[in-house]
Amino acid sequence: MTDKIALTPKTHTAPPAKFSHGIRKGNILQTAGQVGFLPAEEGRAPVPAGPTLREQTLQTLANVKAVLEEGGAGWDDVVMIRVYLTDVAHFPEFNEIYDRYFEEQALTQPPAARTTVYVGLPPGLLIEIDALAVLG
Amino acid sequence: MTDKIALTPKTHTAPPAKFSHGIRKGNILQTAGQVGFLPAEEGRAPVPAGPTLREQTLQTLANVKAVLEEGGAGWDDVVMIRVYLTDVAHFPEFNEIYDRYFEEQALTQPPAARTTVYVGLPPGLLIEIDALAVLG
Amino acid sequence: MTDKIALTPKTHTAPPAKFSHGIRKGNILQTAGQVGFLPAEEGRAPVPAGPTLREQTLQTLANVKAVLEEGGAGWDDVVMIRVYLTDVAHFPEFNEIYDRYFEEQALTQPPAARTTVYVGLPPGLLIEIDALAVLG
Repeated sequence: MTDKIALTPKTHTAPPAKFSHGIRKGNILQTAGQVGFLPAEEGRAPVPAGPTLREQTLQTLANVKAVLEEGGAGWDDVVMIRVYLTDVAHFPEFNEIYDRYFEEQALTQPPAARTTVYVGLPPGLLIEIDALAVLG
Repeated sequence: MTDKIALTPKTHTAPPAKFSHGIRKGNILQTAGQVGFLPAEEGRAPVPAGPTLREQTLQTLANVKAVLEEGGAGWDDVVMIRVYLTDVAHFPEFNEIYDRYFEEQALTQPPAARTTVYVGLPPGLLIEIDALAVLG
Repeated sequence: MTDKIALTPKTHTAPPAKFSHGIRKGNILQTAGQVGFLPAEEGRAPVPAGPTLREQTLQTLANVKAVLEEGGAGWDDVVMIRVYLTDVAHFPEFNEIYDRYFEEQALTQPPAARTTVYVGLPPGLLIEIDALAVLG
């Protein structure tokens, strides 16, 4: 039987419920939905990186990346990125931030597929992202 | 060629459109979005387990589990759970119900990753859940 | 290392950001979220197939299919279809269009699992769909 491994980066708080920040099983790695919380500090409630779309997007991407790396993967292994925004008006700015971020990641593989939809999120959060990677 | 197997638990109505309640192909099992409908009774339209978040969440989880089991899987095989709620205010109660449920399932593996977002659903439905499992 | 292949059908515009219309890696193929844009014409901004749910649904399904085929797959390989509608009132008509479409596709395998939720999309778009296929 293949191991099912929970991925918990050191930067992350314990999840607020009985789920894992990411799971790797065999060559499949799926991250939980990440938001723009700063690295956890003991005894402090989770705090978003800031109120702006830019701050939250970059922190969210950093949080997804941390889960990927905890599982021995990176952006080059990701086949699908699901993006949940809260405001359709954010789309152009989000794309600029996203593109610049991935240019800086210096991918050696084609970028992942992506779906972006507009949903409700808890107050103060503008974005949530999860990623599916296929390793090897 | 690997078989693509439709999973149709006995408790489930025929899907309302040309889709399967779950598919297993090789070691991948994906359930369709499940809602809180009670086990099907012939000649009766689908009926939610009740109006409350608790009733619908527990029935929805039971329905997902039924699809998993129809495919020879269980919660321990699930790598990702996607949760669609209709009201951000439901999050704390939902987490309580979810945690208690999975404590009772006595998982032997780490819990699945999870993404929770807030969307619209048909009238009367408070929650929808689907799950991705990797077997073996 | 298994190749990660970007899928870009000839009918598709370049994605509006650094993502791929679809990715195939090994036996996994994931399409990006497709909408009802007509085949791309150089120098023209993307144009939806029409304002109606029917026009957009059929074009969206055609766009998903084009990505699948670019990756050597087809509807029979799809295990999961995620449908994002913008209006709960569209569900019955959507199901009719969906069922008719898949009858015409003459599937030789069981239909994919499906999750349908109601979200916000950019102005003028009524539907978005992505698909996960497992080949072989």
